[in-house]
Amino acid sequence: MNQKIRIGIVGYGNLGKGAELAVGKNHDMELVAVFSRRSLSGTLSGVPAVPISQVGKYRDKIDVMLLCGGSATDLAEQGPQISALFHTVDSFDTHAKIPEYFAAMDKSAKAAGKAAAISVGWDPGLFSLNRLLAGAVMPQGTDYTFWGKGVSQGHSDAIRRIAGVKNAKQYTIPKQEAVEAVRLGKNPAINSNEVHIRDCYVVAESGADLAAIETAIKTMPHYFVGYETHVTFVSEEEFKAKHSGIPHGGFVFRAGQTSPGVNHIFEFGLKLDSNPEFTASVLAAYARATFRLAKHGFTGACTVFDIPFAWLSPKSADELRRELL
Amino acid sequence: MNQKIRIGIVGYGNLGKGAELAVGKNHDMELVAVFSRRSLSGTLSGVPAVPISQVGKYRDKIDVMLLCGGSATDLAEQGPQISALFHTVDSFDTHAKIPEYFAAMDKSAKAAGKAAAISVGWDPGLFSLNRLLAGAVMPQGTDYTFWGKGVSQGHSDAIRRIAGVKNAKQYTIPKQEAVEAVRLGKNPAINSNEVHIRDCYVVAESGADLAAIETAIKTMPHYFVGYETHVTFVSEEEFKAKHSGIPHGGFVFRAGQTSPGVNHIFEFGLKLDSNPEFTASVLAAYARATFRLAKHGFTGACTVFDIPFAWLSPKSADELRRELL
Repeated sequence: MNQKIRIGIVGYGNLGKGAELAVGKNHDMELVAVFSRRSLSGTLSGVPAVPISQVGKYRDKIDVMLLCGGSATDLAEQGPQISALFHTVDSFDTHAKIPEYFAAMDKSAKAAGKAAAISVGWDPGLFSLNRLLAGAVMPQGTDYTFWGKGVSQGHSDAIRRIAGVKNAKQYTIPKQEAVEAVRLGKNPAINSNEVHIRDCYVVAESGADLAAIETAIKTMPHYFVGYETHVTFVSEEEFKAKHSGIPHGGFVFRAGQTSPGVNHIFEFGLKLDSNPEFTASVLAAYARATFRLAKHGFTGACTVFDIPFAWLSPKSADELRRELL
Repeated sequence: MNQKIRIGIVGYGNLGKGAELAVGKNHDMELVAVFSRRSLSGTLSGVPAVPISQVGKYRDKIDVMLLCGGSATDLAEQGPQISALFHTVDSFDTHAKIPEYFAAMDKSAKAAGKAAAISVGWDPGLFSLNRLLAGAVMPQGTDYTFWGKGVSQGHSDAIRRIAGVKNAKQYTIPKQEAVEAVRLGKNPAINSNEVHIRDCYVVAESGADLAAIETAIKTMPHYFVGYETHVTFVSEEEFKAKHSGIPHGGFVFRAGQTSPGVNHIFEFGLKLDSNPEFTASVLAAYARATFRLAKHGFTGACTVFDIPFAWLSPKSADELRRELL
């Protein structure tokens, strides 16, 4: 076997822990260390937990760094710093800022002779790939994206900020009849907020005004106004038992036409028990591809659009053609 | 706008006619001519129909040739000849012979400085891409492929060879309960022949022994034995009205696990009114990519695994990141 790809992880929240699991499932990879701004007592796999300030000492010990911080603050700052030292893969998902982030990563990685794969995950990521593929194959058609059933961290946080709320989780759920209408080729005209339900589970402080909380949720602009919103109050025990997971998923469709009356439905779907574990698994596969891309001389930033699928797999080109084509 | 990609089509059956439609939907492409061994009276789009013997005269007039003959006989012979003259894209789908065909195409294309994308379509093709992607992202998991509802040409032909049969069409249909079991993450152990129904529509000669035909179908080794097979006799009029299309499609699933009890379902599905029109649309998108691949210096044979999605789209890298990522 060739030498293993040496992986590091920056950030040790849910995504970082998922990355630790994912690297362990890829036998051509070796996890070297986990880096964090926090002082960690250790890691699940036993690899060293290292303060981020010492990351520079690992320049010759790590090939690809998986950036597992959040887009909003961590990545915008850490990304360009780390990509000046290592090849990187991240799941930057603040859509409006992707061009700006791409430019920053491209500059830092290129100057250092490194490769930086940005916005890798499932959306952006696998969903984006399918949108591109479906549109290229069927130039005439309509795209649909549905998200869920899945936890929206932003909406859950927004509910938790309401007075009297102790804990909360918001699931985004696509309306089944809308998904089915698309799947059956009915080409419905739909708005995203009309085809998703916002389902909220709330633990209230004792003595809180439940009706006021429910009203505060349903009338919250940007987050809930315009959506079919359900609010269910649950006990702390029930919340822990039934709402501690982080599921997600969704569907990308394209309904296309190749000649009058000749219609085709292209569908891609994910149903994920754990959003961070799956996202981290995508990062791991793209770490392999990014390492190979770099070995072939690529420097700068790239996205899932730029990477041939062959490089995602540990199998040889011959094996892929024989077994998977 | 840049100069258009100049396309030729070899073979003018259902797939070739689909390719003619597909090229017409891609505004950065221009169809130059259709080549056939048969003497054609003309083409639907009005481009010249040219005897295949004169294909050499088009060396400087066509960039990419879409090979639209059948795998069984045409492509094995035509592929290496044409790829010595033009960049090519084909939908070679005789799975067991792919390594041999790849080697032949690689040799002829490389010697001529051309690029040849083989086995492009939906299976092999888009289904293969999804099998690779799902397996790379989730190394631990189980793959499932379902085909249909769709016409199997081979099975329809086999029925037509039975004495007393005037015309016949066989649809392969996945059993809905098996698809649902996979979709719900039940991880069923399944054999392909147990989860597909073979649904046959037969026009019998007048006075034919219908019971004998039905028995001949259901007991036909390799084709029908071991399958749930339905036989329905229809009139010639009903056959023409209801069974003249060539629909197809299917699903690729991977049920994966990232840690104990944490499961994910990856699903890709197509529902196609016309198998040849959709397949031809895939060929057209890959013609664009193959042309770009060649412009970047690639020569020899390649498959969908080797081509970054960015090259499938007429949009620029900036546009793709902004609009689709």
